[in-house]
Amino acid sequence: MGRGRAGRTRFTELRRLVPAITPKVLAQRLRQMERDGLVGRTYHAEMPPRVEYEITPLARTLLPVFHTLVDWSDTHLGEVERARERYDAAP
Amino acid sequence: MGRGRAGRTRFTELRRLVPAITPKVLAQRLRQMERDGLVGRTYHAEMPPRVEYEITPLARTLLPVFHTLVDWSDTHLGEVERARERYDAAP
Repeated sequence: MGRGRAGRTRFTELRRLVPAITPKVLAQRLRQMERDGLVGRTYHAEMPPRVEYEITPLARTLLPVFHTLVDWSDTHLGEVERARERYDAAP
Repeated sequence: MGRGRAGRTRFTELRRLVPAITPKVLAQRLRQMERDGLVGRTYHAEMPPRVEYEITPLARTLLPVFHTLVDWSDTHLGEVERARERYDAAP
């Protein structure tokens, strides 16, 4: 989310970055994260109006949690995939 | 989940531990975690049949991720709650 000007990103750019999520779900998640103080929303009263999103300092404190999760998945995702294959193949 | 005999727990005990989850959703999540290799399921062909669940060694490797998340929430959950109050109070 920190890719645009001054770390701000527009909805359409977020949609492009996360194609698997529908616009409706993405809008819901952004509102939830805004409510939780993890995303900042800036409304520009222009024609047409423009909205930008950015992660907040509070969200940046979550980075160590994400790093721990990424490290775990780098190490163990293969085991999860093999477990899924075994489960799916079971009678 | 490691509370019963040899770390095994029955569905009814899990339901008691997590009252907010419906039986249907709990059963789904257990099946997903079993498929992912995070939960082991033991079926006892008795009358009536008995099923027990236990976390796997692979699941135990996730403990550091949970500890990081618990530490984060101990430190920052208050900020999230205040952000929610501000968001809900906004016009």
